Amino acid sequence: MFIQQLIERLGSEKVSQSETELYRHSHDESSHQAVEPDVVCFPEGRKDVEIIMAVAREFKVPVTPFGAGSGLEGQVIPIKKGISINFERMNNVVKFSPEDLVITVQPGITRLQLNKIVNRHGLMFPIDPGADATIGGMVATNASGTTAVRYGSTRDQLLDLEVVLADGTVIHTGTNAKKSSSGYHLTGLFAGSEGTLGIITEITLRLHGIPEHTVAARCTFDTPKACAEAAQTILLSGIPVMRMELVDEDSISQVNQYGGYGFPVCHSLFFEFAGTMRAVEEESKLAEQLMRDLGCENWEVASGSKERMEIWKARHEMAYAYQHVKGMSTTGADVCVPISRLAELVEFARKLIDESGLTGGVLGHVGDGNFHTIIIYDPNVAGEKEKAEYTNEALALRAIEVGGTCTGEHGVGLGKMKFQETEHGAAVAIMKQMKRMLDPDCLLNPGKIFLD
Amino acid sequence: MFIQQLIERLGSEKVSQSETELYRHSHDESSHQAVEPDVVCFPEGRKDVEIIMAVAREFKVPVTPFGAGSGLEGQVIPIKKGISINFERMNNVVKFSPEDLVITVQPGITRLQLNKIVNRHGLMFPIDPGADATIGGMVATNASGTTAVRYGSTRDQLLDLEVVLADGTVIHTGTNAKKSSSGYHLTGLFAGSEGTLGIITEITLRLHGIPEHTVAARCTFDTPKACAEAAQTILLSGIPVMRMELVDEDSISQVNQYGGYGFPVCHSLFFEFAGTMRAVEEESKLAEQLMRDLGCENWEVASGSKERMEIWKARHEMAYAYQHVKGMSTTGADVCVPISRLAELVEFARKLIDESGLTGGVLGHVGDGNFHTIIIYDPNVAGEKEKAEYTNEALALRAIEVGGTCTGEHGVGLGKMKFQETEHGAAVAIMKQMKRMLDPDCLLNPGKIFLD
Ligand SMILES: Cc1cc2nc3c(=O)[nH]c(=O)nc-3n(C[C@H](O)[C@H](O)[C@H](O)COP(=O)(O)OP(=O)(O)OC[C@H]3O[C@@H](n4cnc5c(N)ncnc54)[C@H](O)[C@@H]3O)c2cc1C
Ligand SMILES: Cc1cc2nc3c(=O)[nH]c(=O)nc-3n(C[C@H](O)[C@H](O)[C@H](O)COP(=O)(O)OP(=O)(O)OC[C@H]3O[C@@H](n4cnc5c(N)ncnc54)[C@H](O)[C@@H]3O)c2cc1C
Repeated sequence: MFIQQLIERLGSEKVSQSETELYRHSHDESSHQAVEPDVVCFPEGRKDVEIIMAVAREFKVPVTPFGAGSGLEGQVIPIKKGISINFERMNNVVKFSPEDLVITVQPGITRLQLNKIVNRHGLMFPIDPGADATIGGMVATNASGTTAVRYGSTRDQLLDLEVVLADGTVIHTGTNAKKSSSGYHLTGLFAGSEGTLGIITEITLRLHGIPEHTVAARCTFDTPKACAEAAQTILLSGIPVMRMELVDEDSISQVNQYGGYGFPVCHSLFFEFAGTMRAVEEESKLAEQLMRDLGCENWEVASGSKERMEIWKARHEMAYAYQHVKGMSTTGADVCVPISRLAELVEFARKLIDESGLTGGVLGHVGDGNFHTIIIYDPNVAGEKEKAEYTNEALALRAIEVGGTCTGEHGVGLGKMKFQETEHGAAVAIMKQMKRMLDPDCLLNPGKIFLD
Repeated sequence: MFIQQLIERLGSEKVSQSETELYRHSHDESSHQAVEPDVVCFPEGRKDVEIIMAVAREFKVPVTPFGAGSGLEGQVIPIKKGISINFERMNNVVKFSPEDLVITVQPGITRLQLNKIVNRHGLMFPIDPGADATIGGMVATNASGTTAVRYGSTRDQLLDLEVVLADGTVIHTGTNAKKSSSGYHLTGLFAGSEGTLGIITEITLRLHGIPEHTVAARCTFDTPKACAEAAQTILLSGIPVMRMELVDEDSISQVNQYGGYGFPVCHSLFFEFAGTMRAVEEESKLAEQLMRDLGCENWEVASGSKERMEIWKARHEMAYAYQHVKGMSTTGADVCVPISRLAELVEFARKLIDESGLTGGVLGHVGDGNFHTIIIYDPNVAGEKEKAEYTNEALALRAIEVGGTCTGEHGVGLGKMKFQETEHGAAVAIMKQMKRMLDPDCLLNPGKIFLD
């Protein structure tokens, strides 16, 4: 009945019930249980989104926005079925103002599509979660990745969001000004809300100049803990690294196998420095000196763009590298802790994995205090999944205990719901009140972030 | 009756009805009509704040937090009387973790008190609104100032807030991790809420390393518009200026008189560059070249710390400079617009002042697109106040029209309430719902930001 309405009001070319589409919208890149929606809609503009919301309200059907489906916490899984909204046809630039370093886009544009457009003007959107995520998905999960150490998270790039609320109201949360002290800051609230508070239909973003010159480097240490300590030294030195990634021995070994690389199988730090030629030279020399003082080995600089690409290609393939073993599943943590607790937590994580008896690695954006574990388990061997999940849980709880968070960048979705009360305490009740206020019938991505 | 309760529960030394205190808490640095509270409380910790809120709830008495009273929009004026909460006894450091570049403080600590403590560790809290505001007041107004072009606003420095809500619940809005994608982002919401959503009792802030080397410079142009265009050129060049301020001829003339300076009475840009010695040299040379290409005059570098201090002392005295004429009042705008519209808006502002027939200047943090007007009027001459206010209004509306905001940093308070609907449209209804949700009896700084 509601599907009939959608077809009538949107046109049948914007509504699909094909097996392929239902399947595609049933899961993301995580191992959370897939659930198919009843129908997938492909809006071509805000008006279409308003129509979808009107139908959803009338028939009390859940609505779940879908970006690129690259999420790692099951955020797009329509666990209560209903309508999935796919934004791939809403991937236009609405307004580009290079002289303001600002662009307004529709949510379905991907990070690479966006950069292709702005790079020509010497500008970039620097946030890089590896996957070719949509900007809408990145806003909705407050994604970050390898460059957050320099530019912050997606939330920090936002000037304005256009949002369709559950009741059909369309709001703008900000303006095109670089800063403002007017009214309550709704932009930050909708960022990271994972489609549970409103549907984002337009995003106004800051852009940044492309640095003149870039150099990559890597070095190795005896233990993951030593890598984390070295990362802290770099941060305290004030060197404005562009990227700084910890990749432990196991992860190097996986990616060497997966991608045919020949990186030394040791606990490693990968660096990128970017700026003027002189600044980059100074910074990478200083970093080398600091790392050598701490006893690093295998310091290697890749200034050619080919070798540089290889290092970052490898880094971005890590997640897939762990998935190359057929029939096996993966799971992982995404903790972020104060820098002073990083080394201790990295060591704790390594120990958890070793004690589980499973294969897994530690890797992450250590410049922010954010790191992941990736653990491989056999879903058909009784107890393996539980063991893997135990390591995630123990690590998340320990991170919260030392003043950190259960999720530095992937978001809550289904996987981190169980930590919300522990991490946020009494604030969870306020968050739930906000959800009820904005979405009283619980139509927007129900069952995510908290149990309703 | 409620005052008796406050005395009983807090102790009389924390409660004052002295004329001096009532007067001190009746106004801020703006010309908004003063109103005295019934009583002023001086909490010494969160428990005291909880007691004050309990009494306020019981007797349905309004509560207005007071920082340093340096606000410019009447935010601290208790227009419905009741209790003013002064935080000067809550000015302690709760936890300082230099190795994390993070500090937790009570809200009453001032910017200068804080910097005195952290400077010793080579660190700084860079946000500088000129006045020695409290950190609580700065969070509550999302203050910024001369360094926002480099570091952003106060909101951008926050990791966590402890807030006492109207119903007595105490929440933490974040963690000590540098980034997080967990739960809804309440930190950003309470920042800039001007005491209308909750009472902030603890603030966890990012700190930054003190740059090795600093150089100031200034130059002049024929028109304020030319200054604004020059500022845009600097931004597009990617030079990471530390400060970049526009000061028009009238303002230079006022501050020369007020402070006995000898700055050339021309439309000026004031710069600060900060970083490593080499970087600063490179940057200031490049800036000089760009400015000379645009036809600047009087380029002057102040590398000695004395001359440097003089430039920034003068800049910070601007507001007071305009107040040195006895018996006269001042008022002003605080617009922030996309950089590409800055020159046009600056010209528009200058014209508005000229047409008003009053004395006034244009000055501001043009690196953010944020600038102020300051206009002197005689409150005893019929029509002058109205003329001055007309310029503010026309400028704010024009700023909103070009995609900007009516307040870049001072906040809404009483003065910018009338622009909320125009700037935020349908979002105002959501903001009001949030206010009602968190403060159903309207006890927290009532009558600010929007009419209830
Ligand atoms: C190999 C790999 C590496 C990764 N590395 C990182 C990393 O380093 N850092 C990082 O942060 N993430 C990382 N991720 C996770 C993922 O890329 C991010 O979470 C990304 O932001 C998801 O974007 P998406 O477009 O795929 O969104 P989806 O997964 O499709 O959706 C994510 C959430 O956004 C909501 N949403 C989407 N569009 C809208 C809209 N228009 N309005 C409202 N809500 C909307 C969805 O409902 C869902 O809740 C990685 C993923 C993979 C597969
Ligand atoms: C000469 C001069 C120059 C200035 N220049 C700038 C500038 O460049 N940039 C800029 O941003 N501002 C500027 N200002 C304005 C002012 O300094 C800022 O608004 C500052 O943030 C106010 O801080 P305060 O401690 O004085 O707060 P107050 O004025 O005392 O209070 C401001 C608001 O904060 C609320 N508040 C205070 N403490 C708390 C708390 N603990 N919990 C909840 N709410 C609280 C109050 O209720 C009020 O709504 C200037 C002011 C002057 C006088």
